[in-house]
Amino acid sequence: MQKKNIFFAHSGGVTAVVNTIAAAVITEAKNHPELINKVLVGRNGILGAINEELIDTSSMQTSELNILAQTPGSSFGSCRFKLKNLTDNKHEYERIIEVFKAHDIGYFLYNGGNDSQDTTFKIWQMSQTMNYPLTCIGIPKTVDNDLAITDCCPGFGSVAKYAAIAMKEASLDVASMAATSTKVFVLELMGRHAGWITAAAGLASCNPAEGPHILLFPEVAFNKATFLAKVQSCVQEYGYCVIAASEGLSDENGAFLAEANTTDAFGHKQLGGVAPILANIVSHELKLKTHWAVADYLQRSARHIASLCDVQQASALGKAAVNKAAAGTTGIMVTINRLQNTPYKWQVGEANLQDIANIEKKLPTEYMTKDKMHISNAAREYLTPLIIGESYPSYASNGMPEYLKPQRQLIPKKTT
Amino acid sequence: MQKKNIFFAHSGGVTAVVNTIAAAVITEAKNHPELINKVLVGRNGILGAINEELIDTSSMQTSELNILAQTPGSSFGSCRFKLKNLTDNKHEYERIIEVFKAHDIGYFLYNGGNDSQDTTFKIWQMSQTMNYPLTCIGIPKTVDNDLAITDCCPGFGSVAKYAAIAMKEASLDVASMAATSTKVFVLELMGRHAGWITAAAGLASCNPAEGPHILLFPEVAFNKATFLAKVQSCVQEYGYCVIAASEGLSDENGAFLAEANTTDAFGHKQLGGVAPILANIVSHELKLKTHWAVADYLQRSARHIASLCDVQQASALGKAAVNKAAAGTTGIMVTINRLQNTPYKWQVGEANLQDIANIEKKLPTEYMTKDKMHISNAAREYLTPLIIGESYPSYASNGMPEYLKPQRQLIPKKTT
Repeated sequence: MQKKNIFFAHSGGVTAVVNTIAAAVITEAKNHPELINKVLVGRNGILGAINEELIDTSSMQTSELNILAQTPGSSFGSCRFKLKNLTDNKHEYERIIEVFKAHDIGYFLYNGGNDSQDTTFKIWQMSQTMNYPLTCIGIPKTVDNDLAITDCCPGFGSVAKYAAIAMKEASLDVASMAATSTKVFVLELMGRHAGWITAAAGLASCNPAEGPHILLFPEVAFNKATFLAKVQSCVQEYGYCVIAASEGLSDENGAFLAEANTTDAFGHKQLGGVAPILANIVSHELKLKTHWAVADYLQRSARHIASLCDVQQASALGKAAVNKAAAGTTGIMVTINRLQNTPYKWQVGEANLQDIANIEKKLPTEYMTKDKMHISNAAREYLTPLIIGESYPSYASNGMPEYLKPQRQLIPKKTT
Repeated sequence: MQKKNIFFAHSGGVTAVVNTIAAAVITEAKNHPELINKVLVGRNGILGAINEELIDTSSMQTSELNILAQTPGSSFGSCRFKLKNLTDNKHEYERIIEVFKAHDIGYFLYNGGNDSQDTTFKIWQMSQTMNYPLTCIGIPKTVDNDLAITDCCPGFGSVAKYAAIAMKEASLDVASMAATSTKVFVLELMGRHAGWITAAAGLASCNPAEGPHILLFPEVAFNKATFLAKVQSCVQEYGYCVIAASEGLSDENGAFLAEANTTDAFGHKQLGGVAPILANIVSHELKLKTHWAVADYLQRSARHIASLCDVQQASALGKAAVNKAAAGTTGIMVTINRLQNTPYKWQVGEANLQDIANIEKKLPTEYMTKDKMHISNAAREYLTPLIIGESYPSYASNGMPEYLKPQRQLIPKKTT
């Protein structure tokens, strides 16, 4: 069999471990010298294929790959770009295959969420239609943890650990001061449609007295009266109330709270932020002092407190994708399969791309308490193993983590 | 000399290392068995003295003190409570001395910022007026780093490390995605009047291409046109623009931007948040996609990424306060004195309380670049040593840091 190059790319929102996956792919490819030549990474995801902007990783040494593996974000760039249907946009797919031909690409490894695995699936279909031999493998990724079939998604374990620890620390802070200062604190976490990250913040409390006392999931319609009653009872009983809320929290009509008709001092419609809205409701209705935080990108880029389990799974999936590709497997996404909870055991599996693409896995009701404002024991059993262990980056003498600078060096174009 | 008890308390906003100071005080007190009996800690700061709510730490073992030392917030509670003038409120001071007498307190160690050192000073004055022998020593604390004379304040080094790392990680995230997604990101950090924390975020960029590209200090009046011009030039040159802004950012008239006349969907006046306001300005004026984060309490409670330098200084100050008290020194606050920058050397010193109380040390102009939108090399030389080293907490088998639960057990009251 002729040696071919791998095209690898990141897609969609980045995580603390997409570079860990990249480093694993690049490293593992070197173990198949008879089948794999180089790993070419797309600059800004699939756009790198369309624009023929490719980064050659073959000169990256082990020391550099180790730094890559501990760097948050994508050192090669990612994109928010969804390929249209094959029928509507055949030209774009033909262009990708043209670039792949020009650069002798025989393997397409795409690291992304459910939208992105739709791309992997379509490119696989197109390669068959065009009779271009291309081994296509998806590698999961998303802090949202909303991919079907796989037990969890690389990136989620680390953001879950961040959310649980940040919530724990902020709760201790609020508990310290509640007698004379802030009594209610709201932390906004990511999750437009799925409440997995907010659920993970729930791990910070081991009993009802500890914060967070309330979790607000996007799967559960926000009810102001129920919410305020719970806040008030927590403040009465524990002296303070700490809340984690998903950015996608919606009202009974399915409208995002953060997209409420808010205007700023300049008369502009205000950009989201569900935490300030909740804090405002509490301060006005209950006359309690509030504070709020919005973690936004800080949570998904917090490589400094990455979960060791997450880093190990990210690395294993990158490695498995290369090995499966080398073995000729195609049209699949590699998955994490959970074998048991205590002690946690898992192995890498695979699923057909069409069973993954565009499907969104939400937080199930059985992972919530009866009042749907906290997590159940079943959720704790599922979530806890994913945040176990700390994978610290190395630090330079200036006290900062050693992170790789963005890789921008492109190889010469071959198409016109 | 007769053995006396220490009254120790936290005051004002908590940090990642106020418990480190408490642990050092409790531990060091055991080295003076001939002079010091017990360390009694005030529940909720000075309120613990007024309300006679005291926690006896003498049964805390080394293992528990080690956990205390790595726990963010105050395990004993702190307070926002400023004693009035002696003339206006003599009764409160007399009450404190009454409680101190009842519990055989001979040493008053108070851990707080400039307001709190005003309290230490007044209690010292009152003890002299009332002829009650009381050794009074202040121990600095504040994430704001705005205390006079001391080179830095325990708590600042850790929040500085957090700010620099969070900013670095978020910058890498934004750089990854800027081609097709967010181009401008704003991180709001603490600092109502002093820009030290925002300055520390500046350590994340080592050259103009790296984020943060813009720092907005409360010492510099916000100019919308200058700000927008700089944002636009960064996006043009680097593809994205990352901004750190102090919560206390103010306009030319000294009005806080976060207190602008903002209303939410319910018609309520909106609570602060300078980051969403800045993001809104950018998205409306420059039509660029923005994201923003507000770190709020997450930053000052982030013990998981505490600076080793900060932890060591916190511990040294707690220890020194006890030793100076035992040696009969009174009416002072212990300080950090910087001896040299490279390699960083420091020692514990002292300053008179009246030279500390109520004085606010702002970010000096020479620590800013010429355009006052970033930090100078002088600032880097000052800040860098303070974030060096990582002092990680220990972790339990469930993946969470081992933090001490709030201490609530009070000793019996002796006054009526």
